[in-house]
Amino acid sequence: MYDFAADSAESARAVETAMERLITANQLSGPGPAADRLIAAMRHGTLGGGKRLRPLLVRQAANIFNIPAPQAIVPGLAVEMIHCYSLIHDDLPAMDDDDLRRGRPTVHKAYDDATAILAGDALLTHAFGLLAGADCHADPAVRIALVTELVAGSGAGGMVGGQMRDIEGEKGGFSGDDISVMHSMKTGALIRASVRMGAILGGADARALSALTAYAEAAGRAFQLADDILDVTATPESMGKATGKDAAAGKQTLVSQLGVEGARARLTEIVNHALGCLRTFGPKADGLRATARYFASREH
Amino acid sequence: MYDFAADSAESARAVETAMERLITANQLSGPGPAADRLIAAMRHGTLGGGKRLRPLLVRQAANIFNIPAPQAIVPGLAVEMIHCYSLIHDDLPAMDDDDLRRGRPTVHKAYDDATAILAGDALLTHAFGLLAGADCHADPAVRIALVTELVAGSGAGGMVGGQMRDIEGEKGGFSGDDISVMHSMKTGALIRASVRMGAILGGADARALSALTAYAEAAGRAFQLADDILDVTATPESMGKATGKDAAAGKQTLVSQLGVEGARARLTEIVNHALGCLRTFGPKADGLRATARYFASREH
Repeated sequence: MYDFAADSAESARAVETAMERLITANQLSGPGPAADRLIAAMRHGTLGGGKRLRPLLVRQAANIFNIPAPQAIVPGLAVEMIHCYSLIHDDLPAMDDDDLRRGRPTVHKAYDDATAILAGDALLTHAFGLLAGADCHADPAVRIALVTELVAGSGAGGMVGGQMRDIEGEKGGFSGDDISVMHSMKTGALIRASVRMGAILGGADARALSALTAYAEAAGRAFQLADDILDVTATPESMGKATGKDAAAGKQTLVSQLGVEGARARLTEIVNHALGCLRTFGPKADGLRATARYFASREH
Repeated sequence: MYDFAADSAESARAVETAMERLITANQLSGPGPAADRLIAAMRHGTLGGGKRLRPLLVRQAANIFNIPAPQAIVPGLAVEMIHCYSLIHDDLPAMDDDDLRRGRPTVHKAYDDATAILAGDALLTHAFGLLAGADCHADPAVRIALVTELVAGSGAGGMVGGQMRDIEGEKGGFSGDDISVMHSMKTGALIRASVRMGAILGGADARALSALTAYAEAAGRAFQLADDILDVTATPESMGKATGKDAAAGKQTLVSQLGVEGARARLTEIVNHALGCLRTFGPKADGLRATARYFASREH
């Protein structure tokens, strides 16, 4: 019987430990106070919790192909570094201008804007360094496929393009379809890349990759919709960040279109669709099943 | 007889053409006005000239190993994208706060700060996508080696770490050694990576790679010292950007330590050292020789 709480906690601990070891001045930068400050900002933006859902998805997708969890850790760290850099940059005054993240000061509040920009740039760069390293996978062709996948998930056609759409959308004139494209890029693309990277690690064939991609796209939609619902229903204390921001900004979301109850019903439909995509995989996919359900039920 | 003017102009044209084709919404992002804006900002930050010295170095180093210039273009584009993203981010108000670059408005002036941050992030990401693509090199192991090299040149132990040191150094207390480490990281590391990527493309053995690395490190020092001299001696019109900024900011450079004439003498020594590193390579290295001399003689 798959235990989501135990598996996700163990995965998050493994990510935290590995990230902690990785982001040190000895590993990445030279000596001196400037290097110390850069590394400290990178650590502030990556350590100290977070649910580590993307590395969990890498690990759970790899598990379908009998890849042991420790072999999925490096690709998981790479995706997590991309996620963390994007939060650091998105929180900047020029972007979303957030002071709090996971209940702690954002990187530019704890350090300064220039340091936050550079810490994000460095994390983005070293994510690809991790994938290129021998610790990632023995076969260079697999490492290259992982780089390609992470670029697709995080670049102009994925996460960064979605963030750009989000910013432009706040200026008004976004339709429901525009919102859905924006979400599928801003949040969905990296979730999709996480699942596919697990599948690539496992040497998935085209059919399995396609089913897992469909799962990941539905899971990403569920994740974002749950986030939009929480923005309306949760308190800043339970979220560890400001809430009600979408409404305050007059931002269109599915919740503003469907209402909270309508959005919850839609969320259930989407999760069921995600589960349907995993039909052929048997109990090895119970991790991915549990994560899709978790996306719909989470309270922060 | 090697013709630097012709070779560098041809190389710059090839980079411009390939970059122009590459950075389009069809290639990188989806349709819509937000994608158009992101792509336009990425184009603003990469097209319209620039000397393209880093792709030239990739090409010239690869030439030693009989790699035809067209086969060096993709790695050259990747290095150039990294260089361009770093200029976009460095020009931001939170960093160097520059309004002009190559005589044109900087990206955040032409668009806005958020767009400039995202355009830089996207260029950084897609640089690695280029290296991972089949167009880069037939052998995935070579592509992985190129990714590793570019990460080393541009991450916390290279360019980004150097920029962080530069910012901290402006707060005072930098010694001559600190300045030299800062320069070797901020500017030198990417020049080093460019030369080494050309060597990796060419399948250089350890001895050749080591000689070319020593050349590149000297060339990088020459490049930065020439820049510092120009900051004192050139006009904003000839440079297409503000000058006298180092002195105005009270920034320590080798020029402030040695005086202009002393710095020019040091520059000649460094270039001679760079040329010495190429001793064993014969006429195939005339390109790299000419570039080192060019670094010392350039007027903008």
